[in-house]
Amino acid sequence: MYYALIMAGGSGTRLWPLSRQSRPKQVLKLVEERTMFQHAVNRIESLFHPERIYVVTGAEHATQLMAQSPELAPDHFIIEPEGRGTAPAIGLGAVHIRRQDPQAVMVVLTADHFIANADHFRQVLKAAAQVAQEGHLVTLGIKPDSPFTGYGYIKQGDSLEVVDVFPVFRVERFTEKPDPQTAIQMVKSGEYSWNSGMFIWRVDRILEEFTRQMPEFYTHLSVIEATLGTPTYEATLQRIWPLVTKQTIDYGVMEGARDVVVIPVDIGWTDVGSWGSLLNLLPTDQDGNILVGPHIGIDTHNCLVFSSKRLIATIGVQGLVIVDTDDALLICTKDREQEVREIVERLKQNGDDQWL
Amino acid sequence: MYYALIMAGGSGTRLWPLSRQSRPKQVLKLVEERTMFQHAVNRIESLFHPERIYVVTGAEHATQLMAQSPELAPDHFIIEPEGRGTAPAIGLGAVHIRRQDPQAVMVVLTADHFIANADHFRQVLKAAAQVAQEGHLVTLGIKPDSPFTGYGYIKQGDSLEVVDVFPVFRVERFTEKPDPQTAIQMVKSGEYSWNSGMFIWRVDRILEEFTRQMPEFYTHLSVIEATLGTPTYEATLQRIWPLVTKQTIDYGVMEGARDVVVIPVDIGWTDVGSWGSLLNLLPTDQDGNILVGPHIGIDTHNCLVFSSKRLIATIGVQGLVIVDTDDALLICTKDREQEVREIVERLKQNGDDQWL
Repeated sequence: MYYALIMAGGSGTRLWPLSRQSRPKQVLKLVEERTMFQHAVNRIESLFHPERIYVVTGAEHATQLMAQSPELAPDHFIIEPEGRGTAPAIGLGAVHIRRQDPQAVMVVLTADHFIANADHFRQVLKAAAQVAQEGHLVTLGIKPDSPFTGYGYIKQGDSLEVVDVFPVFRVERFTEKPDPQTAIQMVKSGEYSWNSGMFIWRVDRILEEFTRQMPEFYTHLSVIEATLGTPTYEATLQRIWPLVTKQTIDYGVMEGARDVVVIPVDIGWTDVGSWGSLLNLLPTDQDGNILVGPHIGIDTHNCLVFSSKRLIATIGVQGLVIVDTDDALLICTKDREQEVREIVERLKQNGDDQWL
Repeated sequence: MYYALIMAGGSGTRLWPLSRQSRPKQVLKLVEERTMFQHAVNRIESLFHPERIYVVTGAEHATQLMAQSPELAPDHFIIEPEGRGTAPAIGLGAVHIRRQDPQAVMVVLTADHFIANADHFRQVLKAAAQVAQEGHLVTLGIKPDSPFTGYGYIKQGDSLEVVDVFPVFRVERFTEKPDPQTAIQMVKSGEYSWNSGMFIWRVDRILEEFTRQMPEFYTHLSVIEATLGTPTYEATLQRIWPLVTKQTIDYGVMEGARDVVVIPVDIGWTDVGSWGSLLNLLPTDQDGNILVGPHIGIDTHNCLVFSSKRLIATIGVQGLVIVDTDDALLICTKDREQEVREIVERLKQNGDDQWL
């Protein structure tokens, strides 16, 4: 059977002040009246029965996420005592799914990406599941529309096959976030995709990779797996998890894995990781503005103005990101929006927890 | 005896969103921990006994002003049922003062100007009162430091005398707000002062001018004056005031008055009429910023950031006026700050009274 594992941890500091420690971006309604997490669930509901959808998240956000998707049973939320990176989260999800079905194909999805062409995306998943069934580890590669330096890149190797209309390539290598010059070359060559963080594989295959490449973690994981469905599961997880080393799936598994393939796709994918990404995503008015909440503008152009209920008046400004919340306000030029992270860092350093 | 009349009406729409219909600028703490009105009172307390200080204001703000200056007796607040411009306000003040002392010299002051050199200002007032005693209508002219087009200008004529160290000139003419070219010429000539709206005159002299130049208003005023100190004063004022035509003291009286003189002074005068004027007034930090309230800035220069309690984070911005209040937020480039008035106009047109 096919199972989905939605990764819904993390906090998204670059969407401060809207995203906070207690209110991460996946629980926010950023696009089209549903939260990012609800989009992630709704997008795949026609492919997966709710009984075959799992969510990995942190204890601090589990309640909010459960409330947002009542169709998912509470025991389908796999709750990490604390975040240890994507590799342990996926490993934990994998043993939960193996318990349901040792032959399962597992689709790893994210809760903080927007996908404009959901129909096409579901077609891709069906094809990818067929490829995974054969034993390949499938990554979805996003055809890049710019030499963005904030993502990892995947280099296509030889063509393996074409499933439905989708060409499948062997992965030649994973590349870390490149410098601008390298990124330009990579995009020009047509041989690279962005690493989307979405994967499709048989659960036995990925656990085999964990055994081989992260044996210490796999030992921990086995202890936890042995208690699944028993009253001691929770206590065991609480005891073991702090011993787990932080690791990403890319470093920890994918870069050294056998038989990795990539399907480069064009599904209208956006990483909603920063205010700038929302500017590309949401429709603008005739002045190039995106306006949420009450606003009066005089000569205001190419701005994102995001308010809850307070009135925002702007005069003679352009290219600004303005985000207003109950207790904090951000005003930032578009080209500097990556530095929002620094604001959050400074708040941490200053011990200004009320704004985190 | 010498009496002071502080004009404390008006609302100051260009300081929106801090100033509101219910919270005009004279009641705001804009400079040095006291409100503009408190500055206006404190500035003259060493010259005038509280029994000889009167305040003209509107019914909607009288309570706030009384609370801010408990040293003034409530019956020294002359409350206009509604604003009819500066001429009627001064006329009404004049008859109150005439009732105390028909030979009084009356000093008309404003509550929305900041005066950095208060000592020097008091010296000027003493000299001006001597000149007024002789029967002249004295205007205080501000030596202009720029060709600002937002004020009226006063042209000096012949020199009349020198009192203390202050030269006194006959006024050749009052000029309305000039165009930029004319303003440059006027300032270059050295023969013009800004019209500060501060006047010193004998109460009999100004009422003589009202009689001659605004006879209809003077008739109304006489009806009110006859009831001063009687139980029918309030009802009479309420009945008569709506019949009074709006008029400014400049148009209605000064331009056509006899024996008007000007004392050009340099007292560190600032018209706190707009956010830009505060930028000139308040001390800036090493980045040229004026910061009130919690703020984190990255690469932020020459900004006024005015918050009450909300945190304001700014990245990569310069030359912005940012004013945050409980229910409304202004973001405006410095050079456009005169257009704040338009925001207020639009709110009125839209019937958005909650933000007015």
